Amino acid sequence: MALCKRRGFIYPASEIYGGINGFWDYGPLGTQLKRNLREAWWQDVVMNPCGGRPGPHGERVRIVPLDTCIIQHPRVWEASGHVAGFSDPMQTCRACKKLFRADHVAEMLEESEWGKAVLEMTRTAAAPAERFAYAREPLAKWARTKGRQLAPGLAIVLETPKVAAAIESRIEASGAGEFAPLELLSLLATANAGGALATPCPNCGGDLTEPRQFNLMFETHTGAVRDDASKTYLRPETAQGIFINFRNVCDTTRVRLPFGIAQTGKAFRNEVTPRNFTFRSREFEQMEIEFFCHAGEARDWYRFFCDWRLAWWQSIGLGGANLRLRAHEKDELAHYARDGAGTSDIEYRFPFTAPGFGELEGVAHRADFDLREHQRIAGAKLEYFDSERGELGPNGQPKGERYLPHVIEPSAGLDRGVLAALCEAYSRDESRPSPEIMRFHARLAPIKAAVFPLVNKEGMPEVAERLYLELCSRFGRLGFIETDAKQSIGKRYARMDEAGCPYCFTIDGQTLADQTVTVRDRDTGAQERIAIARAADYLGAKLDA
Amino acid sequence: MALCKRRGFIYPASEIYGGINGFWDYGPLGTQLKRNLREAWWQDVVMNPCGGRPGPHGERVRIVPLDTCIIQHPRVWEASGHVAGFSDPMQTCRACKKLFRADHVAEMLEESEWGKAVLEMTRTAAAPAERFAYAREPLAKWARTKGRQLAPGLAIVLETPKVAAAIESRIEASGAGEFAPLELLSLLATANAGGALATPCPNCGGDLTEPRQFNLMFETHTGAVRDDASKTYLRPETAQGIFINFRNVCDTTRVRLPFGIAQTGKAFRNEVTPRNFTFRSREFEQMEIEFFCHAGEARDWYRFFCDWRLAWWQSIGLGGANLRLRAHEKDELAHYARDGAGTSDIEYRFPFTAPGFGELEGVAHRADFDLREHQRIAGAKLEYFDSERGELGPNGQPKGERYLPHVIEPSAGLDRGVLAALCEAYSRDESRPSPEIMRFHARLAPIKAAVFPLVNKEGMPEVAERLYLELCSRFGRLGFIETDAKQSIGKRYARMDEAGCPYCFTIDGQTLADQTVTVRDRDTGAQERIAIARAADYLGAKLDA
Repeated sequence: MALCKRRGFIYPASEIYGGINGFWDYGPLGTQLKRNLREAWWQDVVMNPCGGRPGPHGERVRIVPLDTCIIQHPRVWEASGHVAGFSDPMQTCRACKKLFRADHVAEMLEESEWGKAVLEMTRTAAAPAERFAYAREPLAKWARTKGRQLAPGLAIVLETPKVAAAIESRIEASGAGEFAPLELLSLLATANAGGALATPCPNCGGDLTEPRQFNLMFETHTGAVRDDASKTYLRPETAQGIFINFRNVCDTTRVRLPFGIAQTGKAFRNEVTPRNFTFRSREFEQMEIEFFCHAGEARDWYRFFCDWRLAWWQSIGLGGANLRLRAHEKDELAHYARDGAGTSDIEYRFPFTAPGFGELEGVAHRADFDLREHQRIAGAKLEYFDSERGELGPNGQPKGERYLPHVIEPSAGLDRGVLAALCEAYSRDESRPSPEIMRFHARLAPIKAAVFPLVNKEGMPEVAERLYLELCSRFGRLGFIETDAKQSIGKRYARMDEAGCPYCFTIDGQTLADQTVTVRDRDTGAQERIAIARAADYLGAKLDA
Repeated sequence: MALCKRRGFIYPASEIYGGINGFWDYGPLGTQLKRNLREAWWQDVVMNPCGGRPGPHGERVRIVPLDTCIIQHPRVWEASGHVAGFSDPMQTCRACKKLFRADHVAEMLEESEWGKAVLEMTRTAAAPAERFAYAREPLAKWARTKGRQLAPGLAIVLETPKVAAAIESRIEASGAGEFAPLELLSLLATANAGGALATPCPNCGGDLTEPRQFNLMFETHTGAVRDDASKTYLRPETAQGIFINFRNVCDTTRVRLPFGIAQTGKAFRNEVTPRNFTFRSREFEQMEIEFFCHAGEARDWYRFFCDWRLAWWQSIGLGGANLRLRAHEKDELAHYARDGAGTSDIEYRFPFTAPGFGELEGVAHRADFDLREHQRIAGAKLEYFDSERGELGPNGQPKGERYLPHVIEPSAGLDRGVLAALCEAYSRDESRPSPEIMRFHARLAPIKAAVFPLVNKEGMPEVAERLYLELCSRFGRLGFIETDAKQSIGKRYARMDEAGCPYCFTIDGQTLADQTVTVRDRDTGAQERIAIARAADYLGAKLDA
């Protein structure tokens, strides 16, 4: 995160106003990195579907693009199930009024400053679980001192003797003096010996309410009147814009099933507890394909997309043990996937999830859930007439079949992809003067090459300028080409390593004598000498462009 | 609009739910057209700033990209002036409750069905202004019959004798029996002889309220609590995301003044009366540059950007009399531009504005308005230290100068650009079997080429497939390459003309004999015959790729 800020990859949004929780802006390098990832997806999904890989039956895969609005008619979100069901259970602190996602509270408690302090006090080498008896005196002291700052709302801080006595009586009643960590924290938050255990607030130790459902869609009003009829939502996913245009696309293009519709764009979720840098933010960008096919072929396409999407992420540098494909368990399936053959996630082992993994893309078999619901709620006919199916008629031609297509949805998070690329690229080589290196895949690297005159005189800047302009005109559409004549060459290389520039060309004294330059490889730091006339082709081969 | 729908350029958003006023979705061809325009801008602004054109003092122009959030801290919009001042005067109908922008009412009245009927009745060749006396009887009859359907809320429809008498008494008092059109419509809407004239509703003829200010920003709430503290806005422009990151960009990149920051992205304005297809919609995409420079150079840069931006729109096919650069009059200037040297609009003559023009891009000299306001409201230091300015010190080096940069803002509407490209491309050639032709500039055309076998047999499909794949691999990143073997060749050409595909290659009997193909030019319909081996180079030269 420090490097992301320092080098202009990602800034907190509205930073000069103190920031706004759950929103991030991309700086110059981050914007280009994100753009390169979006472009790679677009080229391999829309312009050359599936990178030219044949479909499960050897066919050419067809995918057409779409670009739909963030604000749509509110009934779209009734049909999709988001109005009724897109909610998280949330708990509020009765003392400090902060809100928490119920399923995040346990982890946040263990990570909170006061929680860590308490658990530290009660841990002994002998007893792996937390022992109250052992820590009785230090805990009482902490409650009267440090606890007042760290957890001013915690019951034992507010009423030390009463809560200590309540815990003692529970121990007497049950005979047990050891507790699981969260149980102990709850005991400290519970004033009454007889009542149910409280859940303490990760922020102040206060009492949390019972979980209640909170819809994650951002609401607004369209038009000048603010009433229920004008209420609209910011889309929580780009997918529905595709489903509601399915018939339009069929009617106005010559696509025939099976085919996909793809789009990229912003989506919004009013997360209760945004966290983990850009991983769970409130405004983010999706890259989604909805692939429509006959029910009988859906499983084949589902497997095809699982395989291809995994291979795609590998192709842009997320190979290795940090990437995996994981099929959802039955009880994890979203409402729209229950009729389908399943959902698989492509997951990346982020530093903040390790040793666990976090979702990068979901490939869901949605069956005909969405089209069926839109057909029902909108009262529109969304069935597809497939002239190549059905019984043969008397003329030997199929009679055709009318059906609601099934849908396979590979839905990727662009910001999560960028974050994974940043994490995968980040490496340290302590042998270098500036040890941080961003080993981006060449296709994603925001800076494609740099051209340096070794010194800013003796004709070197002029030669560097010519090579710089040549590389700009040939590769400038793919990313930045840098040139810089100031500071020592070592510092300039280090700056390029941090920014993830894969190749640096340096014009030195020998260049003027024999028309050669050095090329330095970011990952190895090794340099080789090539003819300056060959520099552009050399870079072209490395960039596959 | 019909062609846009029929060929998949633009659909009404949420169409299966009856649509949502002011929102439009892009179909497959429209998505690619919009993308090509955005790409052209991005390449010529960010990747190769100003297309390589030197700045006003011969310097290389530097522009870096940014990608900021739609939702920012609400104080951003206090500083920008949008919370206090971004509003339109709006009038509501007391009868039908519809809302109208006050400055649109007059035009809408004259275009309304009931307004047109009334004015038609009162027009005579002898009297160019409207005469009440002449139309007294027909108007009374209309009020009792047709008027009840067309204008059920109109005073003369509700109380025919009373309103007619009131008009008579006004005529007697003033001695005039002729009225300007809008004055006459107002008289018909006013029940009391003595009172002020009413403004009738363009929809039902009812009484409109006085104008009141209506803020155009979409509001939402961020976080789980809905109160004033959590109120946030959807950005009404992408510009502010750049200003609030100005210091971050200076601190984390090596850019030095003068330089620009550019971004594209969605913006939202809750227009009271969205109209003119995608021209005034509620969700739209902007392409903005904020160019920062010393106050002393700002006029030079302002003129530079006016010239270059006009030339840029010309370069992508909007040349001719439909495009113009127009400097704002002093009283048109927005609040942020009052300290600057002015604002110029690049305007296009849309069919719905003709003979007038509509704004495509504004080039504004914003002076230091935005940075000064953010500095004041955020309490952040946004001054720039320019080490190359200031008095010379004892060592002969400048001492440096600290200042708030001035800003030139070329701000273009992507959707408006697409709409202008559609309007400019649309043409009819009645001599062709299918007369509608979209003459897109090759850089914008969503389909770059088509390859057709003349008949779907005799080895032609195989040859077509090979050429198709060759063109895909070389030009597929720029746009679609189509192939199609069905229907007559004339119908296939006509389909490509409507979609704006500039070149069609056809494989025919002669191809098999001498390895040549025909190339058909969309604009002229003329065909020439070239070696199939030269087809890709031919297209490359035409596409400048």
